[in-house]
Amino acid sequence: MIEAAADRLLAEVGVDINDYPRAVELFAEAGAEIDHDAAISDEGARVRFPDGMCRRIVTENAPATYTQHARNPERSVTIGANHTVFAPNYGSPFVFDLDNGRRYATIEDFKNLVKLTYSSHHLHHSGGTVCEPVDVPVNKRHLDMIDAHLRFSDKPFMGSVTAPERAEDSVEMARIGFGGDLGDRTVMTSLINASSPMSWDGTMLGAADVYATNNQACVISPFILAGAMSPVTTAAVATQTLAEALVGMAFCQLVLPGAPVVFGSFASSMSMQTGAPTFGTPEPALALYTIAALDRRLGVPFRSGGSLTASKLPDAQAAYESAATLQPTLLGGVNFVLHAAGWLEGGLSVGYEKLVLDADQLGMMAVLAGGVDMSANGMATDTLLTHPPSKHHLGSDHTLANFEDAFYFSVTANNDSFEQWEIDGSLDSAQRANATWKESLASYEPPPLDDAIGEELTEFVARRKDEMPDEIG
Amino acid sequence: MIEAAADRLLAEVGVDINDYPRAVELFAEAGAEIDHDAAISDEGARVRFPDGMCRRIVTENAPATYTQHARNPERSVTIGANHTVFAPNYGSPFVFDLDNGRRYATIEDFKNLVKLTYSSHHLHHSGGTVCEPVDVPVNKRHLDMIDAHLRFSDKPFMGSVTAPERAEDSVEMARIGFGGDLGDRTVMTSLINASSPMSWDGTMLGAADVYATNNQACVISPFILAGAMSPVTTAAVATQTLAEALVGMAFCQLVLPGAPVVFGSFASSMSMQTGAPTFGTPEPALALYTIAALDRRLGVPFRSGGSLTASKLPDAQAAYESAATLQPTLLGGVNFVLHAAGWLEGGLSVGYEKLVLDADQLGMMAVLAGGVDMSANGMATDTLLTHPPSKHHLGSDHTLANFEDAFYFSVTANNDSFEQWEIDGSLDSAQRANATWKESLASYEPPPLDDAIGEELTEFVARRKDEMPDEIG
Repeated sequence: MIEAAADRLLAEVGVDINDYPRAVELFAEAGAEIDHDAAISDEGARVRFPDGMCRRIVTENAPATYTQHARNPERSVTIGANHTVFAPNYGSPFVFDLDNGRRYATIEDFKNLVKLTYSSHHLHHSGGTVCEPVDVPVNKRHLDMIDAHLRFSDKPFMGSVTAPERAEDSVEMARIGFGGDLGDRTVMTSLINASSPMSWDGTMLGAADVYATNNQACVISPFILAGAMSPVTTAAVATQTLAEALVGMAFCQLVLPGAPVVFGSFASSMSMQTGAPTFGTPEPALALYTIAALDRRLGVPFRSGGSLTASKLPDAQAAYESAATLQPTLLGGVNFVLHAAGWLEGGLSVGYEKLVLDADQLGMMAVLAGGVDMSANGMATDTLLTHPPSKHHLGSDHTLANFEDAFYFSVTANNDSFEQWEIDGSLDSAQRANATWKESLASYEPPPLDDAIGEELTEFVARRKDEMPDEIG
Repeated sequence: MIEAAADRLLAEVGVDINDYPRAVELFAEAGAEIDHDAAISDEGARVRFPDGMCRRIVTENAPATYTQHARNPERSVTIGANHTVFAPNYGSPFVFDLDNGRRYATIEDFKNLVKLTYSSHHLHHSGGTVCEPVDVPVNKRHLDMIDAHLRFSDKPFMGSVTAPERAEDSVEMARIGFGGDLGDRTVMTSLINASSPMSWDGTMLGAADVYATNNQACVISPFILAGAMSPVTTAAVATQTLAEALVGMAFCQLVLPGAPVVFGSFASSMSMQTGAPTFGTPEPALALYTIAALDRRLGVPFRSGGSLTASKLPDAQAAYESAATLQPTLLGGVNFVLHAAGWLEGGLSVGYEKLVLDADQLGMMAVLAGGVDMSANGMATDTLLTHPPSKHHLGSDHTLANFEDAFYFSVTANNDSFEQWEIDGSLDSAQRANATWKESLASYEPPPLDDAIGEELTEFVARRKDEMPDEIG
């Protein structure tokens, strides 16, 4: 029903394509109906897609999985199928920590967050705009950000999408960072948002064009605040998300057939009092499960979820809401998880303690995804059949052989007695996480980077900065 | 594999039945092999069950669902099938609140927790030993507890299991509370724990005997700390849980064929450092999903899960761990959920604020269980097909018609702007919940209770207390 409704929506209503005539041309060549009279911008058009055209373009061309190569080949990731890749927070203008509270993010915070992500076993991906370094001019931030991802981490990362030329810079810096030639390797997965409802703008399509042309991956993500950018009901959110994403993914396939794309969904509920987005409520979880099922039928990788919360600090609200998003993320089979750690305040802020606490949860998700060991050792039938009733198992051979790996070890939980916990200062988990991220930064060591590559990156960043006057965002 | 292993475990190893010869006799009559030589207690026996005997007794006799009647018929609950019934915390000797910290629980706390549970829309059941009122002599607590459940609530509740005669008192008080005659109504669901590994004791079997004889329901629950009471691996935990529970459920069916029983599981992981139980880790979630699947094949109601945590206070750890237990509880299809709200410190403590925070999560679980509305209104196809691209949906007819009921409204979340939140005192969610439970207690009004019934309960409690010298627990 949802698929049929999405195809009908694309055929009968269509989308607005603004400020990117090349996209209109490509869609027209592929069979779309172009209506310039209905356009809401000078260079725009209303574009309608008959007969499931976008779906057909996507299913016939987009790969089911792709490898995103990392600078360190051991950290390359597969995106799609039964893989789940965790990436940190994205896009927050503020940072929060227990010592200094909430404040504007700086490039120093950005580097710290890249280092903390690099240091966590449970984050597979360095992410992109892990925070907005607002102390750097808006048109030059991407240079410092990509430089930091390449220099302070060797995990895979994301490129800039705030202008097509910044996407070009991202590709060029990746080329330098990977030793001068990317070949046919996909080394960036970047976030392309629709302008919901039912609209795409030139900035995002332009960035997607650059990435698809270079065989780099795009996450095509409608951002739907239900009741504002779409009807308020879950089935309608899913219908519109699918329709909007199909257009973006089809565009990438028209630019380069076979270019890696990820079907993205970010769907949030809303406070009935204030209109503010809300997180960890059941409706976005239902939307995630539904859209994940639609994605499996489409056959491309899926992005959604994370550790989302509206809370201002890493308290119980933050944890409940994050877990109520993360559990569906894992169980829904999401392949690429942005905002998997650190997110606070509806994305306005990223928390140092929150990053530590969330990362521990990601480790647990990995074990959950592993399922139940049904081997002879897992079944332990021999032990069960030889162990007498009423006798504990603490010292049995099977326990001793399995104990060390039997249970996930949480670095953030306190399982001590109340008395021991009091002696240790009665710290809550956020306070303990405060010590953890400081220790992690203090012991951070950068991954190896060829000196020549480091210098070339420095020169590139300096040259590009010189070429442009500062813009203040 | 697990079912076959459990049947083999019961046939080849068997269980210890201690201090309850009647159970040994009933099992012998039903075909079990009795080995008095292997007994570990004077009146005990090692009992082995050939050829899936316990499974057969359970599947041939135990009901798939039952109604637990409440004093107020509107609050009666169905236990089994696709129903999930939430009951509060059980068994904690301590209470915790932000004002007074952690302290021994009293009967005043007990009454408060019954009142708070009664006042929550999201808790369907009044529970049992919501805390241990340690200011009342151990042999008289059950009288005050049952009295409180009948007087301060009209939701269904649980009986005492700490001695057969206390179970008798519970049945008698329920009879008074329900107007003098229970007929064939099941009005209590009570918690019967195995003495894992592979052992049952006379206290629990004696209480189960009383309840089954009176057609009252028993939750037959092995409590497994993996690595101590069973092998450490998940499949082995599931095998042993199934085997132990089959014995308890079969016993109830031998006492009264058709007596309502619930297959229970409480399985926890362990700290490798200290041996302390740990919660919210992935292994107990895997055990829950696995045992829930075994239960569906068995065809009786299932009890497991809750909002479990090892944290001492309602912080992020408490919330992450509780959510990591509660999500599998809901998604695994658990029918009766003890400890659904309030639990702290591995069950040693019940928190006032935690109860408020957890109850809000239970409300969200109910919405999640409702699934996606695929009606014409839910699909909103007419709206989608008539709404122009690029135009927001805030004022559309469909949004206005659906907005009020579209999203779960959380009473514990703060979705305000950072600035508004600061103006309101920068409170974390535990601090806000502190105000909530006080307001709830202040506005509490008891449900109607016939004066004559109230007096008869008072007289019964006074008479039974007079008949016994105080025992200090």
